Amino acid sequence: MYRYKCIVSYDGTKYMGFQIQDELPTIELKLKEAMYKMLKEDIKIYPSGRTDRYVHAKGQVFHFDIDKNIPVNGINAFLPNDIYIVDVTMVDEEFHARFSAKAKEYRYYINQGEYNPLLVNYAPNIKGLDINKMEEALKLLEGTHNFKGFASAQIDPRKDTVKTIFEIKLNVRGVFLEFVFIGSGFLKYQIRRMMGLIIEIGRGKESKTKITEVLDKCDPSISHKVAPGCGLYLYKVYYESM
Amino acid sequence: MYRYKCIVSYDGTKYMGFQIQDELPTIELKLKEAMYKMLKEDIKIYPSGRTDRYVHAKGQVFHFDIDKNIPVNGINAFLPNDIYIVDVTMVDEEFHARFSAKAKEYRYYINQGEYNPLLVNYAPNIKGLDINKMEEALKLLEGTHNFKGFASAQIDPRKDTVKTIFEIKLNVRGVFLEFVFIGSGFLKYQIRRMMGLIIEIGRGKESKTKITEVLDKCDPSISHKVAPGCGLYLYKVYYESM
Repeated sequence: MYRYKCIVSYDGTKYMGFQIQDELPTIELKLKEAMYKMLKEDIKIYPSGRTDRYVHAKGQVFHFDIDKNIPVNGINAFLPNDIYIVDVTMVDEEFHARFSAKAKEYRYYINQGEYNPLLVNYAPNIKGLDINKMEEALKLLEGTHNFKGFASAQIDPRKDTVKTIFEIKLNVRGVFLEFVFIGSGFLKYQIRRMMGLIIEIGRGKESKTKITEVLDKCDPSISHKVAPGCGLYLYKVYYESM
Repeated sequence: MYRYKCIVSYDGTKYMGFQIQDELPTIELKLKEAMYKMLKEDIKIYPSGRTDRYVHAKGQVFHFDIDKNIPVNGINAFLPNDIYIVDVTMVDEEFHARFSAKAKEYRYYINQGEYNPLLVNYAPNIKGLDINKMEEALKLLEGTHNFKGFASAQIDPRKDTVKTIFEIKLNVRGVFLEFVFIGSGFLKYQIRRMMGLIIEIGRGKESKTKITEVLDKCDPSISHKVAPGCGLYLYKVYYESM
């Protein structure tokens, strides 16, 4: 058996998310279809995690196993042009795209400039945000916390919701705001719900003490805003040595 | 009767071009549907010209007539988020989006960097282009010429194919190449077919003398390459005083 690690980049605009949902357009379905066309085998795909509807990826990672040693670099020819395998490496059987991941980097982009229909699916258009207020609030999210208050309300109550965010940066890039989150792992909806509240704070509609309240009370119903998926990018998955 | 001039910006990725084709997704259909929802009237749209499938627009212009004096700024609420009316102005009855146009500016973008599925519908990925060779070839296209050799092969033989290109610029913007064409008017496929040959020259597969040959012979069958529509943007339509 051979195990392959793949780095995949995609434009999430036309997809219902990563995870397969019957015949609906999903990243996983397109990957499985391409694999089937190339390998004539039904391949199981193990991603580092799912991404939501409309969320993009620069460096999503998945692994798969196959009992032949074959070149898999040609897979891009079988994929739609908005999904692209950046790298394929044969890895040790101990490697697991999800369990071996040490950290993940997500980025969130906001267009502060004029409304532009060419950018709307890549960076939501939000104006009048106070950068200092957002930076102060973002500092409260760094470190180890129980992030249950920012998780999906449907989260499994047995799930461990204590995670560490190693670093958060807010960079101004022309008319764009770039939020960088590097953490041990993120819960379902966590970044979009953190961003939803950060945007409210940037607008002056909430104060940064709300961050502390959501973290302390561990109740997903306290903060309601969820930032649009189209601004979110799974940027990189970090592993020990590759 | 009131005449309105509208500037519209759109992401052409999901559309079959500007011009209505029954129920297929086109920019004109979406504009007419939005107008109907807002005004409860079937409105005829007069664009400055058509754009092809997948071609984008920053500043396409159209006009329409209506016998009521009503605010039309709310039309964006009825449009998909990838089509956006940037400006609406009431104009004189002598204004005509097509016939009053003095010049048009198109831009063409190429991504010279890494293949990126997030950019592929906005700037085709083409590497190894010689910028000096392309600049020399572009100079041959400036000025007044019979551009029939770069037109669609199906062009009406009675059509005046003599046009003037006032200016062509090639700007390097990071990993992107930006080609700017400002001219009195452009024939169907003209820019994509000029770009198709310019790319071949940049690749070293053709020499710049081919430009002169296509211009001189006025035969659309001499040069075959058509650059992808997704790299082309109708950037601006110029009028006398607005």
